[in-house]
Amino acid sequence: SSKAWLRGTRIAFTPCHALSTQAAGPQTKDIEALKVNQGRLMETLHKTCSWGTGKRWGSGANDTGMSRLALSDTDKEARDWFVDTTSSLGCDLKVDAMGNIFAVRPGRREGPATFAGSHLDTQPSGGRYDGILGILAGIEMLRVLKDHQVETEFPVGVVNWTNEEGARFPISMVSSGVWAEDISLETAHNLREVGGGTATMRSELERIGYLGSIPASYKSTPMAAHFELHIEQGPLLEAEKQKIGVVHGVQAYRWFTVDVAGRDAHTGSTPLGNRADALLLAARLITHSHRLATKHSALASTGILTLTPGSTNTIPGHVSFTLDVRAPADSTVAAMEADLKRDFAALAAGKNILGLLDGATPSKPLDVSWRTDSVSPATQFHPDCIAAVRASAEAVTGDRKLVRDMTSGAGHDTVYASRHCPASMIFVPSKNGVSHNPEEYTSPEDCALGAQVLMQSVLRFDRMRASG
Amino acid sequence: SSKAWLRGTRIAFTPCHALSTQAAGPQTKDIEALKVNQGRLMETLHKTCSWGTGKRWGSGANDTGMSRLALSDTDKEARDWFVDTTSSLGCDLKVDAMGNIFAVRPGRREGPATFAGSHLDTQPSGGRYDGILGILAGIEMLRVLKDHQVETEFPVGVVNWTNEEGARFPISMVSSGVWAEDISLETAHNLREVGGGTATMRSELERIGYLGSIPASYKSTPMAAHFELHIEQGPLLEAEKQKIGVVHGVQAYRWFTVDVAGRDAHTGSTPLGNRADALLLAARLITHSHRLATKHSALASTGILTLTPGSTNTIPGHVSFTLDVRAPADSTVAAMEADLKRDFAALAAGKNILGLLDGATPSKPLDVSWRTDSVSPATQFHPDCIAAVRASAEAVTGDRKLVRDMTSGAGHDTVYASRHCPASMIFVPSKNGVSHNPEEYTSPEDCALGAQVLMQSVLRFDRMRASG
Ligand SMILES: NC(=O)NCCC(=O)O
Ligand SMILES: NC(=O)NCCC(=O)O
Repeated sequence: SSKAWLRGTRIAFTPCHALSTQAAGPQTKDIEALKVNQGRLMETLHKTCSWGTGKRWGSGANDTGMSRLALSDTDKEARDWFVDTTSSLGCDLKVDAMGNIFAVRPGRREGPATFAGSHLDTQPSGGRYDGILGILAGIEMLRVLKDHQVETEFPVGVVNWTNEEGARFPISMVSSGVWAEDISLETAHNLREVGGGTATMRSELERIGYLGSIPASYKSTPMAAHFELHIEQGPLLEAEKQKIGVVHGVQAYRWFTVDVAGRDAHTGSTPLGNRADALLLAARLITHSHRLATKHSALASTGILTLTPGSTNTIPGHVSFTLDVRAPADSTVAAMEADLKRDFAALAAGKNILGLLDGATPSKPLDVSWRTDSVSPATQFHPDCIAAVRASAEAVTGDRKLVRDMTSGAGHDTVYASRHCPASMIFVPSKNGVSHNPEEYTSPEDCALGAQVLMQSVLRFDRMRASG
Repeated sequence: SSKAWLRGTRIAFTPCHALSTQAAGPQTKDIEALKVNQGRLMETLHKTCSWGTGKRWGSGANDTGMSRLALSDTDKEARDWFVDTTSSLGCDLKVDAMGNIFAVRPGRREGPATFAGSHLDTQPSGGRYDGILGILAGIEMLRVLKDHQVETEFPVGVVNWTNEEGARFPISMVSSGVWAEDISLETAHNLREVGGGTATMRSELERIGYLGSIPASYKSTPMAAHFELHIEQGPLLEAEKQKIGVVHGVQAYRWFTVDVAGRDAHTGSTPLGNRADALLLAARLITHSHRLATKHSALASTGILTLTPGSTNTIPGHVSFTLDVRAPADSTVAAMEADLKRDFAALAAGKNILGLLDGATPSKPLDVSWRTDSVSPATQFHPDCIAAVRASAEAVTGDRKLVRDMTSGAGHDTVYASRHCPASMIFVPSKNGVSHNPEEYTSPEDCALGAQVLMQSVLRFDRMRASG
C-alpha cells in the first residue's frame, strides 16, 4: 500500500542488483512508494526555527522570520541539533576545517555518499525556508529510510554547509567553495564579519566548537552526487502556477565593495561647488548602476552602505558600499563590470554620463576605488542529476505541466559541489517571489512535495549508479 | 606702553563713569591697550584637546582632530577643567538643567553679565577650533582681566553651551534653545543619541554630573549681551585675504529625517521590475535634493544614512536618512521643503522627475515619510553688538579692508542668545574653508586676533552699557 509509511510498516525494497540487468534501467516502483511525512517535516522545521527566531510579521505561531547568522550562538544550537538528530538516525558524522558537517548513512556497499545538502545559516533578516528547508528535507529523508529500514545501494548523506549566505562573512557559499578548492582555506578562515566587527570565520568556528579536524576538500570528503532542495526565491513558479523547478544551473555573479573618498565638510558653510560629497557621489553611482543593469538585462544591487563620520551637519567624506552584479552569462557580468568601472570613474571626475548631472552644481573631484569580494561563474549542472530530478518531479506531481526547467538567480552550495561531482537542484514556489525577508513563505504542501522529489532524486541516483 | 601686558604690569584702567558724560561716547584707549597672550591662548587650547583627541592627519604634535561628543566622558573632563579654571580666575559658577555652565566675573556694579560664549562639544570627526576657540578665547579674556586687575562696569562671563553641534543629540544649539524657551526642556531632555543608542540628554547629563539645579532659561540667567568668536567654517575670508568677519546674522535651516520603506528581497532572484529597493530610491532622492538646492541657490545635505537589513545579497527594505536644508531666507527654505516633499513623493510613485528615471526599470511602489527634527529661522543680530564688533575689528586690525561683513552659514548658540539679549559674532579664517573635519585649521595669529576682537567687543559693550 502506498500508505504503508503512515503505519510505519516496512515497504518491500527490491535490491538494485536484482534489477540492474533489465533493459529499461533500474526499476523505481519501490522508491516511488516511499513517502515523506509532511506533518513531521514541518513540525521539525519550525521547531529548529526557535534557534535564531527573527522579526514577527503576522499573528500566527510561525509568522516570524529568522536571524541566524553563520557561526553565531544560535547557529551552534541548530548545528548541535543536526549532529544529535542525524546520529540518532544512524549516521556517521564528520566535521571539516570549515565547519561543514557531513552525516552519512551507510549503504549496502562502500563508496562516496549521494548527498542532500543545504545550509542552516540565514540572512540577518531572513525567513524560515531559505537553506533550512533543504536540510530538514534531508533529515526527513533519513527518517523515512529508517522507518522503512531501507538499505540503499551506496551510502546517502546530508551535508550542512557553513555560511552559505555570505551575510555575516561576505563570501557566499564560501565553505563549499573551500571544499571545491576554489577558495583557499586561508582566505576563508581570515574572512572578517561585515559591519566592522573583529570576528573571523576561524575565530568563530573555534569559539562555537565547529573547527573540524579533517581537511575541507572534495579529496577528503568525495561525493557521489549532490542534490539540493531550495525555495525558488523568485516569482516564476508561483506566476505560472507550477510546483517544481528542475534547476539546470545558476547564473553568474560578482560581488564588489566600492569605496568613495571625498572630504568631510560643514553642511551649512560649505558652498555646493566647494564640496567633495562622498554620499552624493555614491547616490549617483547606485542610481547609475541600476540603469546599466537595465541596459544589459542584468541585475545590480547594493545591500550594504556605510559612511563616515555620520553626523547630520557633516558632509560625509567617505562612503563604502557593496555591489552585487548578476546575469545568466559570464560575458554579461564582465561587460557590466567594465561599464560600471568606466562610468563610475567618469562620474567621480564630474562627467555628465547620460544626463545624470543635469541641474547639478559641479563638485570637487573624488576618488572611487574597487575591491572584488567574490566571483561565482555561471554554472551548468549535470545531465544525470537533472534527469533524476525531472523523472522524480514528474512521478511525484503526476503532471509534466507542473514541472519547470529553470536557471537559478541565486547562488547555492550545489554550484561548488557540481565542480567535483554530478549535481542538480529542486525548486519549490516562493510566495510573492519573496526571499531574504522574514515573510518568505512556502506552503507545507509545497515543502513536502519538494522533499519528496529530493528523496526520490537521491534514491534514483543511488539506483542509477549501482545499475550503471 | 602697549606692551605692558607682556610684562604683566597693570594698565591704568579708566572707570567708565568718569567718562560717560563725554559727547564722543565712552573712551576706549585703555580697553584697546589690553592684549591677549597668543602663546598662552594656543597652549591652553591644545592642552584641552587632549580630552577627546580624534584622527591624526599630519605629523605635527597638534595635527589631530577632535572627537568629543556632547556629554561623553571626554566632554565631562573638558567641563571639569572649565569649571576649575574659571573658578580660579575669580568667577562664580552656575550650571542649569541643560548642563549649560555660566562663569561670571563680578564687575563694579550688579546686573546681568556680558557674555563671551561658545561650546566645548565637537563633531564625531571634528577639529580643534569649532566651538573650542570661542570658549578658550573667553578664558583668555578672563586671564587678561585678572592679570591687569581690570574692573569692568558690570559682570562679564563665559558660557559653555551643551550639545551645540547637534551631532550626538540631533538638535543643534539645543541648550541655548531651551535657555531661549524656544525648545521645551522635555523635548531636549528626551532627545535620544543618534545611531540607535538608548542614552538621552537627561540620562547623560545625570551620568556625568552636569544636570544643574537652576532652570535653563533666560529668565533665571539673563544676559546683558552675548558675543561669540568662531571660525568661519567656510572659504570667504581666506579667499579675500581678510582677517575678521563681523557677523550680522545666520541663515535659515531645517533638519529632517526621511524614511523610505520598500521590501527586503533577494538580490539574485528578484527581477528589477519586482523590486521595491529602498536604497535605490534613497539614492535618487539624495541625487535630486542636490538638483533642487542648485535650482534654489540653497544647500541640501545628507550626513547620516542607515539601512536594514544590511547584507550584500539582500535588497534593503528600509532606509532612513537626514536632510539638512539651508538658505539665507526663510522663504527659500520653505520653498525647498515644499519642492522636496512634492518631488520625493512623485519619485517614490515612479514619476520620472527631470529625467532622473531615464533608462531605469520601473519598480514596485515605495513609501516616503518625513519627520522635521529642527527648525532654525534666519536670524539678524543686534546693531549695538555688530557695531561693537566692527569698531573692535577695525581697531585691532588697523585696516578696514581686512574686516568683512558676513552672514553665517552655520548655526551658533548666539542665534538663540540673540532672541533675549543683544548679540553678535566674530569670525576668523578657516584654512581651505574646511570645518567638521579633523583638518580644520586657523593659524595661531588669526586665533589671537579673533580673541583680541572678542575681548574688546565685550569690554566696549560693557562700557557702552554703563555710559548709555
Ligand atoms: N540562495 C541564496 O540565498 N544564496 C546566497 C548566495 C546568493 O546571494 O545567491
Ligand atoms: N557652528 C556649527 O558647526 N554649528 C552647528 C550647527 C550647524 O549645523 O550649523
